[in-house]
Parts: sequence; C-alpha cells; structure tokens
Amino acid sequence: MASKHILIVPGDGIGQEVTAVGKKVLDKIAAKFGHTFTYDEALIGHVAIEATGNPLPDESLEKMRKSDAVLFGAVGHPKYDNDPSAKVRPEQGLLKMRKELGLYANLRPIKLFDELLGASSIKPEILKGADILFFRELTGDIYFGEKGRKNNGDTAYDIAEYSRFEVERIARKAFEAARTRRKKLCSVDKANVIETSRLWREVVQKIAKEYPDVEVEHQFVDATAMLLIKDPRRFDVVVTANLFGDILTDEASQIAGSMGMLASASVGDGTGVYEPIHGSAHDITGKGVANPLASILSAALLLDISFGMKAESEAVISAVDKVLKAGFRTRDIADAQTPADKILGTDAIGAEVLKHL
Amino acid sequence: MASKHILIVPGDGIGQEVTAVGKKVLDKIAAKFGHTFTYDEALIGHVAIEATGNPLPDESLEKMRKSDAVLFGAVGHPKYDNDPSAKVRPEQGLLKMRKELGLYANLRPIKLFDELLGASSIKPEILKGADILFFRELTGDIYFGEKGRKNNGDTAYDIAEYSRFEVERIARKAFEAARTRRKKLCSVDKANVIETSRLWREVVQKIAKEYPDVEVEHQFVDATAMLLIKDPRRFDVVVTANLFGDILTDEASQIAGSMGMLASASVGDGTGVYEPIHGSAHDITGKGVANPLASILSAALLLDISFGMKAESEAVISAVDKVLKAGFRTRDIADAQTPADKILGTDAIGAEVLKHL
Ligand SMILES: CC(C)[C@H](C(=O)O)[C@@H](O)C(=O)O
Ligand SMILES: CC(C)[C@H](C(=O)O)[C@@H](O)C(=O)O
Repeated sequence: MASKHILIVPGDGIGQEVTAVGKKVLDKIAAKFGHTFTYDEALIGHVAIEATGNPLPDESLEKMRKSDAVLFGAVGHPKYDNDPSAKVRPEQGLLKMRKELGLYANLRPIKLFDELLGASSIKPEILKGADILFFRELTGDIYFGEKGRKNNGDTAYDIAEYSRFEVERIARKAFEAARTRRKKLCSVDKANVIETSRLWREVVQKIAKEYPDVEVEHQFVDATAMLLIKDPRRFDVVVTANLFGDILTDEASQIAGSMGMLASASVGDGTGVYEPIHGSAHDITGKGVANPLASILSAALLLDISFGMKAESEAVISAVDKVLKAGFRTRDIADAQTPADKILGTDAIGAEVLKHL
Repeated sequence: MASKHILIVPGDGIGQEVTAVGKKVLDKIAAKFGHTFTYDEALIGHVAIEATGNPLPDESLEKMRKSDAVLFGAVGHPKYDNDPSAKVRPEQGLLKMRKELGLYANLRPIKLFDELLGASSIKPEILKGADILFFRELTGDIYFGEKGRKNNGDTAYDIAEYSRFEVERIARKAFEAARTRRKKLCSVDKANVIETSRLWREVVQKIAKEYPDVEVEHQFVDATAMLLIKDPRRFDVVVTANLFGDILTDEASQIAGSMGMLASASVGDGTGVYEPIHGSAHDITGKGVANPLASILSAALLLDISFGMKAESEAVISAVDKVLKAGFRTRDIADAQTPADKILGTDAIGAEVLKHL
C-alpha cells in the first residue's frame, strides 16, 4: 500500500502513443494492488523545442527530480536528422536528462518470449533460451566529451572520455547482477585500439577480483557484434561503454523478435527513468500501429526497480505473456502465420494486456 | 601476360596458415594464365615485435611500398589483449601500415554463396539474395586521433576526427561503386549525437548531388546494426566511418554464413592490401582447421582490383563455388547436415580449390 508520484514524459513520435498505454497499465496495477499512484506530465525533445525552444526545459527537469520514477517515451524528429547543422536538437534533451539525473547505468534485458520465436530473423534453434542483460554506461564516452569544429569547420572532432570511477560503478552493478543470474559477465571494449577501452578493461579486471564467483570474459566490440547473432546463448550479463552499448543493444533487439518488445531502465544517483529502446519512429506515428509492449514492459521494470514491487512487476510481465499466448500481435511481431484478426493496433493490444491484470 | 610482384604478409596466428593457401592459389593462376608473379615476405604484428621489437619494421613498409599488391593475414595476440597497459602492440603495425600506405578505403563485399544458406544463424528466407558492399573508411576516426591519459592516469581519452576531404574521397568511391550495382547507397553515422557524424552526413549529402542516379539514405549506426539482421536485402552499398565499419562488417559476416568466408580490399593512394576480415584466432592456430577461403577470396579481390585481371579473379571465385557445391566445408561453415568426410582442414580444402583452377 504505497503512495508514489510518477512522471510521464512521452516525448516525440510514437512516444506519445505508447506511454499512454504504459500509464494505463500502471493505473490498473495501482487499483489492483491498492497503491496510490499520482501522475504528472513533462515535455522533452522536439515537442519541447516547439513549445519552449528548449529540448529539456528546467521545469521538466525539476519535475523529474521530484518524482519517484519517470516513464519515458522517445525523442527525435527527421527534421533535425536531415539537417546536420541544426544547433538545437531533440536528443540534447535526452542526453541532458541522463547527465543531470546521474543515470549512469542503462539496463537492457533481452529475453525472447517463447511465443515470438518465429518473429525473429534469427533461427529459432539459435535463439531458444537466450537471455541477456546488458549494462550500458550512459553518462560518459563520446556522447558527453567536448565536440566541435576546427579549420573553418572543415574538421570535426569528438572526444571520448572515461574516468576510473565511471567504469567502476557500472562494472560493480553488472557484477552484482551477474551474481543473481548465471554468474557470467562479458565486458565489451576495443582495447586493441582505443585508450578509453584500455582503461575500461583495466578497471573491469580489477573489480573482477572482488567477484571471484563470477566468470569474466573480455571481448572486442566487433567480435561481440558477430557473436550476438551467431550464438546469443553464450551471453549472460554484458557490460559496455555508452556508444558500443547503443549499437549492440539495438542489434540484440533481433534476439527478442523485435525492437518493439524491449524495455530499458536507466538508474544511478536519483530518480530512475524507464523507456522502450525503440525510437520515435515518425514513419508510423499517429497511425495507431506502434507496439506498446516495450512501454508496458518498461512500466514493469519501473515497478520492480524503482518501487521494489516484485509481484506487481511480475503481474505485468505475465499479462503480456498471456496476450502473446492468446495469439495477439502488433504488426512488427506478427509473422506469416499470424491470422489477420489477431493483428492489433496500439490501444487494442494494450486493452488485451489490461484484461489480464 | 603480366609480370607482378606480390608481398605476402602473414602476420599472426592463423594468418600464417591461410595466406600460405592464398599464395598457392595466386601461383596456380599465374601458371594457368601465363603471368609471372614473384613473391617476397614481410613481418608485421606480434611476430614482428618478437623478431625486431617493432610491430611494423621499416623494412616491411619499404617492401610493401615497392610491391604491386600485398596479400595480408591477420595481426593480434592474446598476450597484449589481456594487458591493457602494454605499450607496444601488434595492432599498431596494422594501423601504421594503413596510414603509411594511404589505405583509406576498405571494401568488404558481403555475399552469401548459395550453398552456405544453411550455415548462418539467420533464416535462409531472410538471407537469400543478400549482397552488400561495405566501404569502411580506414585511416581516420577514433583510430588515429590523439589518445592518452590525464589525472594521473585515472582518465583516458580518445579523439575522433574527420576532415571534409577524408569523407569526400571515400563517399565518391562508394557512389561510383553503387553506380555499377543496384544504385543504392546507405550512409551510416550517429549524426544525432556525434559531431564527426554531422560532418560526415553534410559531406555525403553534398556529394550525393553529383550522383542523382543513386538513391541515398542516411541511417544511424544503432538502427543499422538492427536492420542488417532484420532485413539484409534492403542494403546495396553501405559507406561508413572506421569504427562503425569495424563493428558492422563483423556483424554482417553472419550474413555470409561465417567470418571465415569474408575477404577485404584496402585501397587508396598506393599499393593495395588484401586480407580476410577474420582475425588471428589464436584459439585455433596451428590446428590446421582455419578456413582459408577468405584468404583465397582476398587473392581474387587482389587480382581484380590491383591487377585488373577480371577473368583470373572470376576463375578463383568460381573454383571456391565449385568446392562448396561439391559439399566440402571447413568446420566453421559446416552444419548439422554436413557428412564428417566432407569437413576438411585448411590445406585440404585449399587443395580442392586448386583442383578447379
Ligand atoms: C536518441 C539517441 C540519442 C539515443 C542514444 O544514442 O543513446 C538512443 O539511440 C538510445 O539508445 O537511447
Ligand atoms: C585488429 C584490429 C585493429 C582491426 C580493426 O579494428 O581495424 C580489425 O578488427 C579489422 O577489422 O581489421
């Protein structure tokens, strides 16, 4: 019987549609388990730029700081993508939020619901049983270093940077998680070329001594990109830097059948932020076809990690499972065998999940 | 009836075993087509460090400059990988070679031999017909920028850099290649976050105007890592920066069934270098099981690109095709259906290829 304040930050594109469904699920959980969840909304990204000129208005940041957890949508807009010289961009809001809230650890669980074995482009016999938990570092690396132009704008540069304590804190989180799972940790870097990676490897080797029960391997990012597809079951917990994590987790979405199924938790010093790993997807925005299951599963992570509500979180995951077992799909996770009347839109599949709560 | 001087640079690990087979194929081609190929050898990588203390001795570089083409193996050794503080590393030899020879364009053709449809972890119906040509920029980016430590070694940094002309020249090569193929170019970057990527996108947008017959798309590297697995057939020519190219082409090796099948050509200002995309693979070194087909296909690229010998190059590719059609496989490309007596070692499968020349 807890009382919690949740901030809904839909952002851009399908972010609006999917977080609306995620919120309904939170509402139903509160009703069912006797909690009181209050909500507020805040702007970020393109919609915030349109409204205020700022991709993360101070007001939004204040609201985030004061809330117990944030359910987040997505940011981005093709307008800026096609204009490399744009000075103000939706993504700046996202990056500023991560930095200001100290969200240094981004957890991305990759687990295939059995019913979706057929939805992936990877062979079912390669996928069956795959279960990976990524820890992506989220407030350092080339994302946050100095960047700019020189030589009259003819040369561009970006500085990637990592300090020892930044690697230590994310490595510890990953080792702790590995302990509760299959006790295997794969640390991914490019230590044969990059200095930040050499520091990364050095620190992970050191922290590893504190966790003698966890089996550690170090892989290069190029090899990992290959191994994830070739043999996803060899991985348990994977820990890596911001940029490598961005690339590898998007790739790994294929292990889960579709990007539309993947939730993530960003945690660190304060309020946790929960969001789908998919983006704003403007090509399907407003059509009512976006898959809200990643937002629903983000709500499940929120309940578990920020509120410590295990039973509530499991109720959500099990409801999603039942909907899939009943044969319902959104377009992105349907396959040639899915009957047309089982392919549902955003709200309709959300309603099916609510029925099982 | 040409006379050419080829430098063999086996490097480390299985590099030795596979280039030996690649060289035999070149020899046979010379005999068959009436050319005169002369050879020399040079050291690079760990073997060069052991012999001279230098991962790329001046003598090797001189020999490369003077030869008409280089058949390259691989560099790397676990000894350095596990010691992040090593000052001298095999990879420095490789990077120095690329820089000194001006090898700014790394071509990585990804094409599945029909017989290997079953060898991939990706579903055959997703793969069939996939045919991608990667252009990876090879002498810029975070690989070659300043790197080091500060704060008593507690902070590491790497500078990524690109200048306009570096993007222009690789983009032009990619556009030219797209013209001779399906006329589609995908440029991959992370322009929503990284400044070098914004310059990259700006330049590709500009060069695109010179090639109105080529259809251009810009994708973020994270989305591309996903799309390559989800729908490889949507790609024709892909052009990208050094680090993204490293990751994406290793990943894409799964489209070709195995890394052991993929050849690459590094070209630019002078002598071209031809090498498998696989690494030194110390886990299987000396066991005689390494797949030499990537080295053989690298020899085919060498004949085509550096010597303009189309017929000779096609003879090599067709010989590889016949060996696969006859059911022969190395371990890495065998599947559950491959009879044990068709699984050959490095030299034996090389001998099968020679039979068809
Ligand atoms: C939108 C973009 C800046 C962001 C990132 O690269 O971190 C996204 O791809 C993600 O993974 O959350
Ligand atoms: C060995 C390593 C430095 C190299 C690279 O990253 O370029 C390799 O992975 C490659 O792709 O040729």
